[in-house]
Amino acid sequence: MPPPIAYKETPDQHWMHLALDQAQQGVGLTSPNPPVGAVIVAQEKVIGRGYHHRAGEPHAEVEAIRDAQKTHPKLLRGATIYVTLEPCSTHGRTGPCTEAIKAAGIKRVVFGAYDPNPSHREQSRNILLLAGIEVTAGVLEEECRAIIRPFSKWITTGIPYVIAKAGQSLDGRITRPAGESSLITNDAARAHGRRLRMRVDAIIVGAETVRKDNPQLTLRDGSAGSGKVQPWRVVMTRSGDLPQHAHLFTDEFKDRTVIMNDKSLPDALAILGKHGVVSVLIEGGGIILGQAFREKVVDEVYWYIAPRLCGGGRPSIAGPALPDSIELKDVELRTMGDNVCFHGFPVWPETGAQVELLQRAVSI
Amino acid sequence: MPPPIAYKETPDQHWMHLALDQAQQGVGLTSPNPPVGAVIVAQEKVIGRGYHHRAGEPHAEVEAIRDAQKTHPKLLRGATIYVTLEPCSTHGRTGPCTEAIKAAGIKRVVFGAYDPNPSHREQSRNILLLAGIEVTAGVLEEECRAIIRPFSKWITTGIPYVIAKAGQSLDGRITRPAGESSLITNDAARAHGRRLRMRVDAIIVGAETVRKDNPQLTLRDGSAGSGKVQPWRVVMTRSGDLPQHAHLFTDEFKDRTVIMNDKSLPDALAILGKHGVVSVLIEGGGIILGQAFREKVVDEVYWYIAPRLCGGGRPSIAGPALPDSIELKDVELRTMGDNVCFHGFPVWPETGAQVELLQRAVSI
Repeated sequence: MPPPIAYKETPDQHWMHLALDQAQQGVGLTSPNPPVGAVIVAQEKVIGRGYHHRAGEPHAEVEAIRDAQKTHPKLLRGATIYVTLEPCSTHGRTGPCTEAIKAAGIKRVVFGAYDPNPSHREQSRNILLLAGIEVTAGVLEEECRAIIRPFSKWITTGIPYVIAKAGQSLDGRITRPAGESSLITNDAARAHGRRLRMRVDAIIVGAETVRKDNPQLTLRDGSAGSGKVQPWRVVMTRSGDLPQHAHLFTDEFKDRTVIMNDKSLPDALAILGKHGVVSVLIEGGGIILGQAFREKVVDEVYWYIAPRLCGGGRPSIAGPALPDSIELKDVELRTMGDNVCFHGFPVWPETGAQVELLQRAVSI
Repeated sequence: MPPPIAYKETPDQHWMHLALDQAQQGVGLTSPNPPVGAVIVAQEKVIGRGYHHRAGEPHAEVEAIRDAQKTHPKLLRGATIYVTLEPCSTHGRTGPCTEAIKAAGIKRVVFGAYDPNPSHREQSRNILLLAGIEVTAGVLEEECRAIIRPFSKWITTGIPYVIAKAGQSLDGRITRPAGESSLITNDAARAHGRRLRMRVDAIIVGAETVRKDNPQLTLRDGSAGSGKVQPWRVVMTRSGDLPQHAHLFTDEFKDRTVIMNDKSLPDALAILGKHGVVSVLIEGGGIILGQAFREKVVDEVYWYIAPRLCGGGRPSIAGPALPDSIELKDVELRTMGDNVCFHGFPVWPETGAQVELLQRAVSI
C-alpha cells in the first residue's frame, strides 16, 4: 500500500472541522431543519461554540454568539464565525442569523455549504457584505454538504432521504431454518444497525416483518439524554392484516406507529415528506426492500453480513427481479468481529443527470 | 482493541518457520503426498534447505541433506534438521528418510506434525532414538498440521478435502439481470479466486455452469514455472446434456476434463479420492454448492462479495433448503478494493466428535 498522502489543514479548515463536530451533535434531532454547527474564533482560539438543537430553538450561529457573550464578551467584536451552512437571512420561527451576526460585531463569516434551498442561496452573502462583513464560502464544502444530505433532498424534492438496512447470512438470507435462533448477525452489527435509528425521523417496515418478527423499533442504547424523540414507526401493508398485540401497537410508543394501508412506497414517502419527515430508515423485510430498490427510492445503504450459510429462507431482496442491478459507490467496509457492514450509496443511472444538476445548483 | 501480545519465538520455532516457508512452496504440487519442508541448521545458521517437489521425487529431508552436502559438507555431521512433518520410515517410491538422516550424521531431528496416517505415526521416533539421534516433536504443530490438512483428511478417510468458492452480489446472487456484464466481483477478487486452483488436484463445477458460463478453469496467473499441472476439471451432470463446443471439451487441457454422469457429490468425491485426488475446489454454481453444503462435504470456504444488489437471478446456494444453517469458524475477512472475501471453515455439529477423535489420534 502507498503511504497516506500527508496534507496540512489551512486554519479555516481547522476551525470548520470544529464547527462540523458541533453540527454532528444535532444529527437526527433537528428535523425539519438541517443539523448545523458553529464556532467563533478570536486571537486564534475558540471563544464560542454551538449547534442547532431542535426546530424552533436558536440556530447554531445564535447559540455560538450567546456562548461567546457569556464566556469571552470582550473578544466577540471583530471575531470570525465558522458555520457549516450558509447563515439564514429570513424570518422563520427565529430571527435571521445575519442580523444576529451583525449585532454581535462579528467581522468575518466563513461557511461550508451553500443553502440547498435555491430561493435562499446566497441571500445572506450580500446582506453581510453590505454590512462590511467579510464572507468566505465553501470551506470543507463536501463534508458540510454530506451532513445535510437528507435535508437537501427533502427541501428540494419534498421526498424524505431513504436509508436501507439489512442484516443477512453470507448467502443473502434474512431467516434461518425452523427451530434455530432468529438472529443472524452478531451483537455488534445489530447494535450498529439500531444506532441508525438515531439519525432518522421515521422507520419503515413491511407487514410481514411485524407478523414474523414483532420488532420494537425503539432507540435503546445511547438515546437517553440525547433529546431524540422516538422516530415514527411506519408499517406498510396491503391486506391491513396486522397482529393487534404486536409491540408497535401496544407499547409506550404506540402513538408513534402509523399504518400505510395499500400505499405504494413512493406515495408513502411523499405523504411522510409532507408531514415534515426528512429522513427514513427502511429496516425490511425483503419484500419492502425489494420494492424500495425497484422504485429507486434508496439514497444510502447499510448491509450487515454474518459468516453463516442458510441456503434457503427469505432473501434480503425479495419480490420481482430488479430490472437492472444496482452498484454501490463510495463503499466503506467495516468489520464487526466476524461480521462485515457494507456502507454505500446506490448509483441510479437514470436520475444521475438530475442529481448532477442539483449538485451544480447547490455549488454555484 | 488490546495491544497485540508480544511473544518471542524459541530458536526451534524460528527454524521451523523457515521449514514451513519451504513446505509452502510445494502446496498443490505434491499429491497424493503432503507438502513438506525442511531446513538443516549448524552453528546457528541454515546449511541446507529443501521441500518435496512432487510425488516420486525426493522427500524434503533428502532435498535438504543434498543441499547441505553441496554447500556446507563439513557442517552436516552433528547438525539438526527441522522438518514440518514426522520423517517417513517406510519404503515408498523413495527410501525411508530415517535412513537418509542417519547416513548424513545428523544428531537431532525436530518435527512439527505427526504423520496423520495412524499406521505410520511415531514409527520414526524409535528408529531415530535407537540410532542415538535426539528427537523433538510438535514444534509449531498447529501450523504444520494446517498445511497438510487436505492430506490428513484424504489419508484417513479416502475422501478429498473440499474447498467451496463463490463470487456473489451483496444480496447473494451469482447472476446479473439480462443484458448486463456477467461479472459480479472485481478483478482482484476474481484473481484471488483463480489462485485457489493452484492448491487443488481437481475443480468441480455443475453442468449448468458449463452451459451458462463456459468457464476455462485453467491456472493462468502465476502458474508458469511452478510445476503445477492443470487440475482435473470435473463436470457434474444428471442429464448428460453438455455443450460439445465448451472450452472444457475443446481446449488444450481437454484430456484433463472428466464428466461425472448421474453421480451424487459424495460418490463423485469417493471416486476422485480413489484416483489420488487429495483436494478439490468446488467453483459452483449454486446447485452444486447447495448439494455440497446439504451433503456436508465442505471443509473450507472462500466467499467473495461485491457491493452490488441484483435482487433476483440465481442464488449462490440453490436447490432444497439446508436443514440447518452452517456457521463458519476461524473466519478471516479480507477486503479487496470494495469487495470482501470471507474465508472460514464450516462447523459440522454431527461430525464434530469424529473430527475431535481424529485430531486426538493425530496428536497423541
